[in-house]
Amino acid sequence: MIKEAIYHRPKDNYAYAYNEKTLHIRLRTKKNDADVVSFIYGDPYEWQDGKWLTKKIPMKKSGSTDLFDYWFVSIEPKFKRLRYGFELKSSTETIVYTERGLFSEAPTNDVGYYFCFPFIHKKDVFTAPPWVKNTVWYQIFPERFANGDCTCNPANTLPWDSTDPTATNFFGGDFVGIMNHLDYLVELGISGIYFTPIFTAHSNHKYDTIDYMEIDPQFGTKETFHKLVEACHQRGIKIMLDAVFNHSGYFFDKFQDVLEKGENSPYKDWFHIHEFPIITKPLPNYDTFAFTPHMPKLNTTHPAVKEYLLEVGRYWVREFHIDGWRLDVANEVDHSFWREFRSEIKAINPDVYILGEIWHDALPWLQGDQFDAVMSYPVTNALLSYFANETIGANEFMHQINESLHSYSMNVNEVAFHLLDSHDTPRILTTCKGNKEKVKLLYVFQLSFIGSPCIYYGDEIGMEGEIDPGCRKCMIWDEDKQDKELFQHIQTLISLRKQYKAFGGHGSFQWIEANNKHNYISYTKTYGKETILFVLNPTNNKITAPIPFDMAGKKIVNLYTKEEFSAETNLLLVTIPPYGFSILKY
Amino acid sequence: MIKEAIYHRPKDNYAYAYNEKTLHIRLRTKKNDADVVSFIYGDPYEWQDGKWLTKKIPMKKSGSTDLFDYWFVSIEPKFKRLRYGFELKSSTETIVYTERGLFSEAPTNDVGYYFCFPFIHKKDVFTAPPWVKNTVWYQIFPERFANGDCTCNPANTLPWDSTDPTATNFFGGDFVGIMNHLDYLVELGISGIYFTPIFTAHSNHKYDTIDYMEIDPQFGTKETFHKLVEACHQRGIKIMLDAVFNHSGYFFDKFQDVLEKGENSPYKDWFHIHEFPIITKPLPNYDTFAFTPHMPKLNTTHPAVKEYLLEVGRYWVREFHIDGWRLDVANEVDHSFWREFRSEIKAINPDVYILGEIWHDALPWLQGDQFDAVMSYPVTNALLSYFANETIGANEFMHQINESLHSYSMNVNEVAFHLLDSHDTPRILTTCKGNKEKVKLLYVFQLSFIGSPCIYYGDEIGMEGEIDPGCRKCMIWDEDKQDKELFQHIQTLISLRKQYKAFGGHGSFQWIEANNKHNYISYTKTYGKETILFVLNPTNNKITAPIPFDMAGKKIVNLYTKEEFSAETNLLLVTIPPYGFSILKY
Repeated sequence: MIKEAIYHRPKDNYAYAYNEKTLHIRLRTKKNDADVVSFIYGDPYEWQDGKWLTKKIPMKKSGSTDLFDYWFVSIEPKFKRLRYGFELKSSTETIVYTERGLFSEAPTNDVGYYFCFPFIHKKDVFTAPPWVKNTVWYQIFPERFANGDCTCNPANTLPWDSTDPTATNFFGGDFVGIMNHLDYLVELGISGIYFTPIFTAHSNHKYDTIDYMEIDPQFGTKETFHKLVEACHQRGIKIMLDAVFNHSGYFFDKFQDVLEKGENSPYKDWFHIHEFPIITKPLPNYDTFAFTPHMPKLNTTHPAVKEYLLEVGRYWVREFHIDGWRLDVANEVDHSFWREFRSEIKAINPDVYILGEIWHDALPWLQGDQFDAVMSYPVTNALLSYFANETIGANEFMHQINESLHSYSMNVNEVAFHLLDSHDTPRILTTCKGNKEKVKLLYVFQLSFIGSPCIYYGDEIGMEGEIDPGCRKCMIWDEDKQDKELFQHIQTLISLRKQYKAFGGHGSFQWIEANNKHNYISYTKTYGKETILFVLNPTNNKITAPIPFDMAGKKIVNLYTKEEFSAETNLLLVTIPPYGFSILKY
Repeated sequence: MIKEAIYHRPKDNYAYAYNEKTLHIRLRTKKNDADVVSFIYGDPYEWQDGKWLTKKIPMKKSGSTDLFDYWFVSIEPKFKRLRYGFELKSSTETIVYTERGLFSEAPTNDVGYYFCFPFIHKKDVFTAPPWVKNTVWYQIFPERFANGDCTCNPANTLPWDSTDPTATNFFGGDFVGIMNHLDYLVELGISGIYFTPIFTAHSNHKYDTIDYMEIDPQFGTKETFHKLVEACHQRGIKIMLDAVFNHSGYFFDKFQDVLEKGENSPYKDWFHIHEFPIITKPLPNYDTFAFTPHMPKLNTTHPAVKEYLLEVGRYWVREFHIDGWRLDVANEVDHSFWREFRSEIKAINPDVYILGEIWHDALPWLQGDQFDAVMSYPVTNALLSYFANETIGANEFMHQINESLHSYSMNVNEVAFHLLDSHDTPRILTTCKGNKEKVKLLYVFQLSFIGSPCIYYGDEIGMEGEIDPGCRKCMIWDEDKQDKELFQHIQTLISLRKQYKAFGGHGSFQWIEANNKHNYISYTKTYGKETILFVLNPTNNKITAPIPFDMAGKKIVNLYTKEEFSAETNLLLVTIPPYGFSILKY
């Protein structure tokens, strides 16, 4: 075996408390290297006649990537404490892996050799709100969803959908518009709305906050927002707002005060200003988001700034009962701030979902003390590469998904925020070059995968658009221009997700096949006795895949078409047309 | 190259802020696999003409273990942000390693491929008190150091050193006794005292706390303790106390209340009681330290318990100006508690040292939000295996030290608490089976290594003793029975550590050789232009080692013997007798 490939380190994603009783333990080995892996463990203090008491149980292979196999075991240590190691067997050798290295046999009677999980504390367990895994999100860019109240239109508002969006034009989308269309969202079946920023700001995207405590007047008033939240809650729809705490807008009153008064401003330490007087060109002499002078970076470690932003976080939860905060550029704010943010928000309502915008590996933010989830761009990349761009095959897709799943704890995976696109990317139909069947397959995967999926407004009716501003077009309300078939497809998937626990966030995900020859994938979702098989064919050819169920005396239902099948046979095959799929419940 | 051996993950010990400007980046490869490793990096937002701007600089090999090479680079990103990857070259291939995997050439114009260190925040940087790296600790077990006040002797106090210690006997050590001998400690040269517990408790070791807010009367009063702290501070000696927060003693008044009143006790949630009535046999039906009924585990997530213990932490810092807290069984208390503990203690005095007792890999506690250091048992193990027990050779010793150094950030290594023994282990001379020369070598290494070394009381005068109670004998004050030579050896080393910055905690450590054939080691410590070479020969044979200095027109001083050498030659050799050492300043 390749010794250098063997990896484990306690806590993080390799050993973590899944709940207050259960530890999940993972081990990495070189792919196809170990045949059998066992878990050796004991309570650190349980000795008998001078001997440390250990047990040995098998680990199962939980997935593979291009280079590695991952092994898994779940265990409930009686006294919440564990010392442990691993025994790896191939046809030719046995290796015992401990914290002190590799041995040919298990060290005895010295727990010091073994990895340690000292104690499971409920307080330290990563715990996200339970409703998240049942939620299908819908992302609204408020300026572009619906204009329902022309009295609050900003200056120069253009007639709805009268022209293409630009970086600076306005179409007057507002809260009344959203309220007017809640029935539409209920019909689609979504159960959460993620709003890009709604606080006072100059731009149409509102990421340049002027006042974190006020609704931008173009969207309505606090009273309208109250009504909107209430109307959503009545319909079982959660509300998540966007918090831009990394930086303010240029016209944030505190930054304006600093611009005006320079070193004499009481707010001069609210930002990272390198020297006075402040300049913005050629480069700003203060820290900014990227190199954007109109987005000055906030000094989130300054006590007054911290208190101000924490109160922003608390205020909208406390007064408006919002259900989630999506944190913009979350990775560039200090961990210390996010720890306090979580603590303050969860003290008001532990059921608030805290979602960070992090595009890269985000483990340091997902240890239970900061975020509940991040936007899972690595999964998005894998989906787009396989289904949309066809730059990777079935096997590589499976490897990338497995890599992502094994990068985080299962607690994290179960509430990960999965998106196909957003206001920051091309729309999914555009990425798929207009191939609607590909888009449908992408939704089959996204809406059946573990985690919390999100649909970007208008995607469900076939809207297209390049990267922003193209992807921020006005929502199409003319029913003749809406793609009803796509709408129904997503509607059906969401309803199946609700109807069958195995389908959605409660189901456990298991690969059946990633067929590189024919480039299709199949996997199951299981909850209790309920198992659903998904076969997806993102190719131009018809494929035939085996069904891994024992059919004796049983029938299979295609949940999507409602067809039923039965066959007394060991090997049942399903044939799927180009870009087709099957969702089969056993 | 073995792809499976290549490892990096941002934050943790592989990418961390060394200070508010500097990032340290490490990479792991299979040993002797890559010939040249380069670091590819850029600011995530720095683009020109549609191209992402990157640079490439060499990484240097910072150490090897049995299986791996580690590579290192230190960098100051201008805008505190970094995206990066690695280029590995062997004679036959080039591999570029990014967050998205391995490539044959560097991906261009998509920062998304690269590892990310989003922003260096001063607040998130691991920062320990600067005095720690200059400190040599002396551990006192107060019951056994000196009896200076017989009026506070506990019942049945035995005459000093009249018999062997047992688990239950008393000799009356106290604060006045310690104060009487402060000149002795000053003479030795130590600059910090770590006291095992001093709060009210029944046992002689006081780990079974009865009252966390009171001094055990056998040691003196709060007034005596005040005087002791003041007397130490006047002599430049820091004071560290032992906090036993994982569990209380059986006679802690809150536990007694629960024993008495059962479910009606207001303190019933202060512990982890599984059911009432409470039983202690055959196993306690409440959580304990190990399976010890007289040490009930405290429920450190209960708000009242947390506040009580935090106030204990604050009280002794605020009122008595202690300089450090050593945290007993720190790994079994929740991370959440330790985060608040750090925050509360550092708010009173950021210069307080927070040291956790953790025997295993302790990275999750050493991220800057919890402890400043842990007791470095893995280093102790390596030292004992090589010098004392001779179970490993020079090379394996170097590997184990390198493994430990690369398991944590350099910030952590610089303040790690290094001990050869303690009240929980056999004394070092006993472990060395009475071989004093081995003990001397161990001190040469310990007192010249990076980190904060600690001497267990009495070791410096050649006391022996098996694991407790044997290692807890009364301190020998009869000068005729003290090993003066050993005392002077340690005294000399401590004074050199103070005299030469390179010698001690400020010096950077670099292996020169771990000679497996002759089983000796040599290494340098460097600070600025000052370089000191250490050659240690823990064998029964004379060895001859090369001196890696260019001697043209220079002289070398043996700092320990004061001898001076000069030679106009390229290859200077030093010959060292069995169990001897050389400390040569260039």
